[in-house]
Amino acid sequence: MLYQNYPCLEVNLGYLKENVEVVVKNCGKYGISVAGVMKGPSGIPECSRQFQDGGCRYIASSRIDQLAAAVESGISIPTLLIRIPMLSDVQNVIRYADYSLESEISVLEALNEEAGRQHKTHRVIIMADLGDLREGFWDKDEMVEVCARVENDLAHLELAGVGTNVGCYGSVLATPEKLEELVVIARRVEKRIGRKLEIVSGGASSSYMRVLDGNIPEGITNLRIGEQILLARDLDVFYGYDLRDMHQDVFTLKTELIEVKDKPTHPVGELGVDAFGRKQHYEDRGIRKRALAAIGKVDYGSIEEIFPREPGVEVIGASSDHTILDIQDAKRDLQVGDVLEFDIDYASLVYLSNVRDVRIEFV
Amino acid sequence: MLYQNYPCLEVNLGYLKENVEVVVKNCGKYGISVAGVMKGPSGIPECSRQFQDGGCRYIASSRIDQLAAAVESGISIPTLLIRIPMLSDVQNVIRYADYSLESEISVLEALNEEAGRQHKTHRVIIMADLGDLREGFWDKDEMVEVCARVENDLAHLELAGVGTNVGCYGSVLATPEKLEELVVIARRVEKRIGRKLEIVSGGASSSYMRVLDGNIPEGITNLRIGEQILLARDLDVFYGYDLRDMHQDVFTLKTELIEVKDKPTHPVGELGVDAFGRKQHYEDRGIRKRALAAIGKVDYGSIEEIFPREPGVEVIGASSDHTILDIQDAKRDLQVGDVLEFDIDYASLVYLSNVRDVRIEFV
Repeated sequence: MLYQNYPCLEVNLGYLKENVEVVVKNCGKYGISVAGVMKGPSGIPECSRQFQDGGCRYIASSRIDQLAAAVESGISIPTLLIRIPMLSDVQNVIRYADYSLESEISVLEALNEEAGRQHKTHRVIIMADLGDLREGFWDKDEMVEVCARVENDLAHLELAGVGTNVGCYGSVLATPEKLEELVVIARRVEKRIGRKLEIVSGGASSSYMRVLDGNIPEGITNLRIGEQILLARDLDVFYGYDLRDMHQDVFTLKTELIEVKDKPTHPVGELGVDAFGRKQHYEDRGIRKRALAAIGKVDYGSIEEIFPREPGVEVIGASSDHTILDIQDAKRDLQVGDVLEFDIDYASLVYLSNVRDVRIEFV
Repeated sequence: MLYQNYPCLEVNLGYLKENVEVVVKNCGKYGISVAGVMKGPSGIPECSRQFQDGGCRYIASSRIDQLAAAVESGISIPTLLIRIPMLSDVQNVIRYADYSLESEISVLEALNEEAGRQHKTHRVIIMADLGDLREGFWDKDEMVEVCARVENDLAHLELAGVGTNVGCYGSVLATPEKLEELVVIARRVEKRIGRKLEIVSGGASSSYMRVLDGNIPEGITNLRIGEQILLARDLDVFYGYDLRDMHQDVFTLKTELIEVKDKPTHPVGELGVDAFGRKQHYEDRGIRKRALAAIGKVDYGSIEEIFPREPGVEVIGASSDHTILDIQDAKRDLQVGDVLEFDIDYASLVYLSNVRDVRIEFV
């Protein structure tokens, strides 16, 4: 990669650690351990380090290569794979993940065999689908039997616990009643195997609402938290929580302006579809001062996921490599070469940290 | 990076070269040179090689590091930077781009100075905005004067020509009348500087419609083509062109199934927003056979950009790392570990080739 100043994703590591500490402390009040989910910043090891130093009990990612990078960078807390594994990838899973989320007996059997080959014990968390319709057992009787099977028959696996996911695909809310369903399952499994489970993992950042409200059911012992630590935006923006004790600006996107001109706001000519094959609507606001920034959908996803910090700057469109800004009402007399800062959300963070052309800088 | 079998983006290099040849031949009938735009597959050198071997006159990208990679991999046709440059990046531009698109005098002056420092002559194509409202001069008198300025005053730059972009942001169609506007500007510039221009660059894949229709204005001498060569989808899907002489399956996305279960189709519980902060609508179709694939929005963008090849397989949703499929009507008895193939479009190609977790394989 060539060195380019911009676009740049600036990461405030001190703010990040402080966010970790707030979440770990709040969860700790209820005996809940925190798995720090570092897939948002694509496993940048400097971020994982803050998760560890701030008190996370586990370091988690959906992508096994991010866990491998964490291990290789010296992170010493246990790793947790939070995407149920591919059968074709069990070797990597056993090598780099201490724990994993699981929902298929065929995968559990393959992991057991591979763990034996690598002379390891791999810990698994069996997932219950409580209605969000992503991964997990829908049939809870079957789930209890699979847990018993892991406990009794799969010698190289250890049944660490049970877990669930809510809010990711199906938008199901982590209500106390919903999380209570998981505790009931955990108790059934414990009765069936005759011992306590280490982990009852009640979801992701969306379940942290129950910690803030103080109504997280007793028996939930773990949460897997990324967004709330990294950005602390969603519970504020979508659910109105007061998160003023957290930093919402751990991450700053910086882009450089490559064109500044007065132009019309409505395209001139016969219209078809844009570069992404979409019919677009354009508002006609006459001639306005506009700027192009050298960044596009390839880098951050969609324009709804980036938020100019400078008053009077508005994102009005983007192609794969260009972002079009209305700067008519900006206070600064913006010029080609000037740098603009943006807040980002979880979706844009995932893209910005994962693509090639964005430089990452730590402060 | 760890070795993982899937997800995998399979590239048929033979098909790609054949697509290049068709486009180069069709454009050649009208004396039009082709700049092969290789930003779709993120500058994968093996793809750039087909652009060169198939007869493209220039190799083009919006990202300077992709041009650098092409040069370093041995591509010998001239490189063309198709995103107007950052002021902060002129050193890389002069080093790795033989040509660039330009629309700002301050950038041209900086490029001239840097070209002098590197003892090079850099060729520029001055952009006219004809109403698509991305880059380029809106004031055409100013544009002609800037062209004359390059010709007469900027000793280390060479005015290679003029160009325009349509269809990318503003969805403006490349009608014959619209492209004729560019030819008129080219003639004005030529009159002003007293010589012919090498390049009159009439746009991207969307301008290729005029080649197919045989009504591309005389005087257009270049097109910058990516999508039409790589996928040959857009002019078919959006404008109904018969592209049966081209391969629409140069690229194949392969993903592995990580869960297969009978589940409800409507989430169960109180609903909020999904992992990307969006309110979603879910259709209730009762209990159906569903599968999860180990790939998500991080890898390909949005679910509207991937198309299952297998009849009876439908994409119904995705989170950042999971894709949820309805496989009730599939003919195969799909199991965990099975691999599904998808067609992709331009947006998904850009993401899939740019992110870290997708393995690229050539056939």
